[in-house]
Amino acid sequence: MVLERASGGGGTTAIAAGHLYLGGGTRVQKACGFEDSADNMFDYIMQCADDPDEEKARLYCDRSVEHFDWLVSLGVPFKDSIYEQRCLMQPTDDGLIWSGNEKAWPFREKAAPAPRGHKVAQEDDAGPLLFAKLHQAVEAGGAEIRYDASVLTLVVGEGGRVAGAIVRQDGREQAIRARRGVILCAGGFAMNESMVSRHMPHLVGRAELIGNPYDDGAGIQMGMAARGAPIHMSEYHITLPFYPPASLTRGILVNAQGQRFVNEDSYHGRVGEAACRQPGGSVYLIADDACFGWPEMGFELAETAETIAELEAALGLPESMLQHTVEVYNRGARQGVDPLFHKQDEWLAPLDHPPFAALECSFGKASYMAFTLGGLHTRPDGEVLTTEGRIVPGLFAAGRTACGIPRSASGYASGTCIGDATFFGRLAGRAAALATPWDPAGA
Amino acid sequence: MVLERASGGGGTTAIAAGHLYLGGGTRVQKACGFEDSADNMFDYIMQCADDPDEEKARLYCDRSVEHFDWLVSLGVPFKDSIYEQRCLMQPTDDGLIWSGNEKAWPFREKAAPAPRGHKVAQEDDAGPLLFAKLHQAVEAGGAEIRYDASVLTLVVGEGGRVAGAIVRQDGREQAIRARRGVILCAGGFAMNESMVSRHMPHLVGRAELIGNPYDDGAGIQMGMAARGAPIHMSEYHITLPFYPPASLTRGILVNAQGQRFVNEDSYHGRVGEAACRQPGGSVYLIADDACFGWPEMGFELAETAETIAELEAALGLPESMLQHTVEVYNRGARQGVDPLFHKQDEWLAPLDHPPFAALECSFGKASYMAFTLGGLHTRPDGEVLTTEGRIVPGLFAAGRTACGIPRSASGYASGTCIGDATFFGRLAGRAAALATPWDPAGA
Repeated sequence: MVLERASGGGGTTAIAAGHLYLGGGTRVQKACGFEDSADNMFDYIMQCADDPDEEKARLYCDRSVEHFDWLVSLGVPFKDSIYEQRCLMQPTDDGLIWSGNEKAWPFREKAAPAPRGHKVAQEDDAGPLLFAKLHQAVEAGGAEIRYDASVLTLVVGEGGRVAGAIVRQDGREQAIRARRGVILCAGGFAMNESMVSRHMPHLVGRAELIGNPYDDGAGIQMGMAARGAPIHMSEYHITLPFYPPASLTRGILVNAQGQRFVNEDSYHGRVGEAACRQPGGSVYLIADDACFGWPEMGFELAETAETIAELEAALGLPESMLQHTVEVYNRGARQGVDPLFHKQDEWLAPLDHPPFAALECSFGKASYMAFTLGGLHTRPDGEVLTTEGRIVPGLFAAGRTACGIPRSASGYASGTCIGDATFFGRLAGRAAALATPWDPAGA
Repeated sequence: MVLERASGGGGTTAIAAGHLYLGGGTRVQKACGFEDSADNMFDYIMQCADDPDEEKARLYCDRSVEHFDWLVSLGVPFKDSIYEQRCLMQPTDDGLIWSGNEKAWPFREKAAPAPRGHKVAQEDDAGPLLFAKLHQAVEAGGAEIRYDASVLTLVVGEGGRVAGAIVRQDGREQAIRARRGVILCAGGFAMNESMVSRHMPHLVGRAELIGNPYDDGAGIQMGMAARGAPIHMSEYHITLPFYPPASLTRGILVNAQGQRFVNEDSYHGRVGEAACRQPGGSVYLIADDACFGWPEMGFELAETAETIAELEAALGLPESMLQHTVEVYNRGARQGVDPLFHKQDEWLAPLDHPPFAALECSFGKASYMAFTLGGLHTRPDGEVLTTEGRIVPGLFAAGRTACGIPRSASGYASGTCIGDATFFGRLAGRAAALATPWDPAGA
């Protein structure tokens, strides 16, 4: 039985761009000529957080191709083509994009770069199509789906076992017994102001929290009330969407000290996290006439000038700092190297075509968007764990109600949320379906 | 009744240096000629975290002088003198030190600097003396104190009320009923490897976690098991103890890019937090012959050289980066300004006396020490709160078992832990003592 609070299913997945982070040699990867392996993908994923879940990462990489094939078997279409542009929201229906930091330093040093962002074949947002196919499969499977059915609380019985839930539907409250288990899949908590201000206070008032209105943490809170342990609640994905145009990647990001602080060819999430932590607060993207373009997401010009020295003065940066930063950058770019942050050759070009522009990228001034990554601690099969590491009998969680593969702002890659949600959601569903039915004496 | 797991009381407080962060015009502050007010202290404290507890901060500042006087009334001695040196472990018995970031940018811009680290009058570590005086008062008050008495778990009764505890003493387990309440004061979780690796994974293997062996999170976990909400569990205090000698403050800290990243006259905790987050990992303290001295805590030389250019090459820093950093720093220092991070004039001196040295300060290579700041969410009176913000009836917490005034690595000040622990511990004790006795029917 599926209890859905909204009038239709899919949550944030159904309104997303529709990428899944998959690899290890999928059909699309092969067709596009990319080599990848489960081990290589694992080496990448393990770099994406200070505290990766090795067991989950191993499974996710080992069975990634199988997961892709399973999606295809449900009728989810993927085109065997790659969209090579650096993008935030891929406009095309191509099946593959570079959706993380695979090519960026230092990630590329420990894992051979391969694109793993698999987009469902649909222009613009493909989340609706992805969800439609999943939905069809659920319906065909014979599950009873109730919409506008709010789960109010879990019912916890003897030994801490989750025995069911109290559900409100059509104005009535009903107790529903779960014979095998309850799986919480209620999204994250981006829309819960009090949880956000508790766990990521520095985002408040500076970043726009995105998701669907039901990402209010209710699932996580119900799980906690049943003794589930929330982990990494202060982790989030944050984006500074300064590209496209990709050409701006040839610009440099500088802080209030006029220093660079990140390789600008990193994924926009890694850039966002670095940018929102800079001392003194100010962040500017410095571009010359050759690489300038207006960011699609609408950034404002902080200043323009005919020389870097004038731009430095206009921005109020410490004397000679920006000039030296640009000088070092340009010198390296001419030789195809970035001695500070090892930006890839393809994005290196000396900034020497006046006029010069500084785009306002300061946290609190520019557009930053974020969502939450923390959630219930679960085993790969979805069993929710307590603080002591014991299983809460009868309780499972998946999607952003659990903490999964994506768990750090500086290592996030597009597609890991839906990739993780569908992969581990499937495992949780299977584990719950195979659980020994619970039959309290006399029931 | 006091149930103490160790064979003697005091926990980490009893082995600490013995500073309390107090202000607003204490006797010692006045005698040393410093002006301070509750409002000014509040303006400082509110800058020390992204998510300060305004209610606690207000009370703590408003009643700080009274708290000082109360300590004096218990026989805790404070000398009316100030130790002006920049230090980690104050060797003297002077009553006052600068123990935070009061004079450092940007803190000084929003609150007039005043020293607030009050040390109990004792050379070297004064924690034992402080605790001896508190202990005497507890004994004189007639409390029953049981040592070697381990609380194993709380007993939770109807309505979630904490009704008492199960205690192991002399090999026997005993249930003890709490008529008014239980106050958890069992320290933090620096000694719990699994909690540390869960909540602050980047410290594992790189920072030494300090405290007493019983800082194992047991208090926090018991509180959580009774529905208490842990907050800011990923916050810690971390120190890069590069001074004394204070003269090294005239040096500059640079990262793998050869860039400065913090005002070096910040408190060592603020410096430690900034240093452990630098991209590329490497951090060096650059000193010239005029300011060099061997750090008391034992740092190693990374390189020495006759010129900054040679030092830059020897360290493998990107060409011209360190040279320019030093050039800008020296130019400013000659004019008494630090255009990048606004280090105070007294610590500004051009680095122009060869030879030059680079001290190894990289995270994972140099000595970093840390302890935990997260704990149970409490009201100012110590009542433990659930995730939903409801009071857990009969349960209180104080000290590092609760999350209090100190709650951020970049804003920590010495003395806030013991200051907070004694101040809010006292309020919790009073609140519990005044609570309506709980008398279940028939008991």
